[in-house]
Amino acid sequence: MSTTDLPRTPRTRVRRLADRQVFDRAALDAILDEALVGHVVTPRGDDPVAVPFAIARDDDHLLLHGSTGSGSLLRLGPGRRISVTVTLLDGLVVARRVFDNSMNYRSAVIFGVPEVLEGEAKLRALITLDDHLLPGRWAELGEPDAREVAATQVLRLPLDEASVKVRGGGPTHHAEPAYAWAGVIPLALAAGTPVLHPEVAPDTPRPAGVEAFRSRHPHP
Amino acid sequence: MSTTDLPRTPRTRVRRLADRQVFDRAALDAILDEALVGHVVTPRGDDPVAVPFAIARDDDHLLLHGSTGSGSLLRLGPGRRISVTVTLLDGLVVARRVFDNSMNYRSAVIFGVPEVLEGEAKLRALITLDDHLLPGRWAELGEPDAREVAATQVLRLPLDEASVKVRGGGPTHHAEPAYAWAGVIPLALAAGTPVLHPEVAPDTPRPAGVEAFRSRHPHP
Repeated sequence: MSTTDLPRTPRTRVRRLADRQVFDRAALDAILDEALVGHVVTPRGDDPVAVPFAIARDDDHLLLHGSTGSGSLLRLGPGRRISVTVTLLDGLVVARRVFDNSMNYRSAVIFGVPEVLEGEAKLRALITLDDHLLPGRWAELGEPDAREVAATQVLRLPLDEASVKVRGGGPTHHAEPAYAWAGVIPLALAAGTPVLHPEVAPDTPRPAGVEAFRSRHPHP
Repeated sequence: MSTTDLPRTPRTRVRRLADRQVFDRAALDAILDEALVGHVVTPRGDDPVAVPFAIARDDDHLLLHGSTGSGSLLRLGPGRRISVTVTLLDGLVVARRVFDNSMNYRSAVIFGVPEVLEGEAKLRALITLDDHLLPGRWAELGEPDAREVAATQVLRLPLDEASVKVRGGGPTHHAEPAYAWAGVIPLALAAGTPVLHPEVAPDTPRPAGVEAFRSRHPHP
């Protein structure tokens, strides 16, 4: 992880609850390394829309792959600035006054012009994306064929213009009403017990990558 | 829940993996009722950005409240069209070919011009938002004062232009390599054990709303 500070630009300045903005790059890296998807804002005429994509961090870049939503990477086009928002919900904050209820979260917005990867860089990025989800799975299955690689699009976005906002800890405290509970309900995207495909032999061992994924997504 | 179909408009037409688009309103309602946040695309000069907001469905409308991210409801402005994307991750799909790895998800995009609520409608919407998170908590704590209500902004968006996309089930099956596991790792936003605020008496009972929230966010 880098120890540098995130830049302060007009785009990355947080307007609301600015005291929640944090500037260390390590906070950004931690969000991107935990998250599975980011919401990419794609142009759609006069109606920009946020579309979820699989993401993975590769050092000083964010990789974007495929579509888990209703958009297309193709429409992003080369040379066009995009933004990607990555949000992790960490808890529901329960205060003694309903107006102080809140959520604990870590949220990052990255601005930049993505680069479409080709050739060896594309193949390396695909391995990085896959290892982000299932470490070692690529090595276990061997190389994909060239046709599969050609049918896939991977974008790479530099992390040099990004903002991070974090809310953590408990609720604002109020002495009254003293009968009322207050605290935090932790939240996390948790993995359950893997479900075997019905056409796979029941004694097939689960790969290390599946167990690694589960251990990185524990119950909160 | 409504049994009507979602409309087909140029904005709601899914371009990529169009066979994953579903048109029944009940699917939209189920996504909105489970989700805690949506990503609102707000205008920001030439750089539209997706910002997470707390959401709740109120019959045929989506309510938006506060900011869990880096934007402001105020910038949305009256009469301006917005989009809201709500994404639930349901599982990591593990195939025998890395290019068939996927995610199970349910994702909705709602388009519309939000209305800023005032007066009695605003107060009712705030109760709906709070009950979405913690059923009964509002009644337990009593009415907030007028100053608190005035300091809050709530937007209401009709659900009459929305698209829904869903991927469920297992991976595409491949007979080879037969040694390789394939299946689905279930995912869900799960609630952990509530953490009491240190200044609240340890014997304070947890409210029904907290237990209801936990039961709606079980481990997958």
